Amino acid sequence: MLDIIIGNRAYSSWSMRGWLAVRLSGLPFTETLLPMWSPEWDTARATGPLALSGKVPTLVDGDVTLWDSLAIVEHLAEQTARDLFWPTDPAARALARSIAAEMHSGYPDLRRDCGMNVRRTYAPAPLTPATQADVDRIVALWTLARTRFGGSGDYLFGDYGAADLMFAPVATRFRTYAIPLPDIAARYVDAILAHPHVAEWIAAAHEEPWVLDRYER
Amino acid sequence: MLDIIIGNRAYSSWSMRGWLAVRLSGLPFTETLLPMWSPEWDTARATGPLALSGKVPTLVDGDVTLWDSLAIVEHLAEQTARDLFWPTDPAARALARSIAAEMHSGYPDLRRDCGMNVRRTYAPAPLTPATQADVDRIVALWTLARTRFGGSGDYLFGDYGAADLMFAPVATRFRTYAIPLPDIAARYVDAILAHPHVAEWIAAAHEEPWVLDRYER
Ligand SMILES: N[C@@H](CCC(=O)N[C@@H](CS)C(=O)NCC(=O)O)C(=O)O
Ligand SMILES: N[C@@H](CCC(=O)N[C@@H](CS)C(=O)NCC(=O)O)C(=O)O
Repeated sequence: MLDIIIGNRAYSSWSMRGWLAVRLSGLPFTETLLPMWSPEWDTARATGPLALSGKVPTLVDGDVTLWDSLAIVEHLAEQTARDLFWPTDPAARALARSIAAEMHSGYPDLRRDCGMNVRRTYAPAPLTPATQADVDRIVALWTLARTRFGGSGDYLFGDYGAADLMFAPVATRFRTYAIPLPDIAARYVDAILAHPHVAEWIAAAHEEPWVLDRYER
Repeated sequence: MLDIIIGNRAYSSWSMRGWLAVRLSGLPFTETLLPMWSPEWDTARATGPLALSGKVPTLVDGDVTLWDSLAIVEHLAEQTARDLFWPTDPAARALARSIAAEMHSGYPDLRRDCGMNVRRTYAPAPLTPATQADVDRIVALWTLARTRFGGSGDYLFGDYGAADLMFAPVATRFRTYAIPLPDIAARYVDAILAHPHVAEWIAAAHEEPWVLDRYER
């Protein structure tokens, strides 16, 4: 049985990606939520599977342990059906893998200035030029994927898949920080937030008791 | 026919990873080297496949274009044999994917303070605590992989594979900056530098005419 170790649903964007990947796999799983920076969090990071990286998400699959959202995606794609995670068309798949990898290693300004907080929405505020550049780049990639490969579906490559789940915590940030978007991107944000897996994550975040000042504006 | 677009062999660590991945695939390929920050570089980034990301490496495979080293690894693993890139043992494969992903998104201090320069070796100099922490973490991961899965082979998981090529530009940095290492890590650096693909890349870097002050100490 899979167990996915996650941090706070409200704040942990990488946990959200890992959890969405497990949820997409359709495999049965349990989850272990460790409230970040709590005594349990410290203990779990000192020993056991979480000690390998000290980071969430970490996926435990029997005696196989994996950390990192993108590694979890490729592992699960291999275990189940790759077509559940990646588009079947080769050009679409290549673009999906490229943008998922760009998300995985990129957008430091957006990540730093607009931390994920799926429980909140703030009034619009000006972005730094570097953060705006990250937003513009993401909008350009979404537009490219939707225009070329979206077809009649609502997601980047038509059906919901790995590229969407990698960008889900960006879609929630665009909502949280009321970032102005062109129509095509705004509709895509709506589609992501309406996806049942994403909605399930956010609903559970609202049930969480923990409020961490460092992640609240 | 595959074409891999790369930057300077001396300095472009991500290009090195992408090129090593194509080399490992065994597929026939051509390469397009764009001297970074030259007029050709600017032109290539304004139009054609490189305009998609503006970054190297970019892999062109007929009408399929991919950017990003890790996306290129998974694409090629899918096109050829996954076992050429990733260990067959599930626990080893999980660790290989995790550490490759950690490399892909991590070690900002090492990357900033110790830029890749495969043509040079410098006298040892003190590292900042954050850079030393990156080094220590990498050494811990190498030690874990070698101890658990190295067997009688020279590489992280015995045979050379994707995890090794992701860390190859780190091994060259450890040499370039004469960073003190425990034996197990020092021997692994030797093994990486002796690998024929890595040696081929470094030899070609020495033949390159370009010297960019911003990447020289
Ligand atoms: N590259 C990793 C990033 C994981 C990550 O940074 N997770 C954060 C929580 S969102 C964490 O565990 N931080 C704890 C720490 O860095 O000490 C992934 O894709 O999963
Ligand atoms: N995450 C990318 C990083 C690629 C990257 O940053 N490449 C550098 C050269 S080593 C580049 O093209 N820089 C040009 C720029 O950022 O404008 C990968 O894994 O391939």
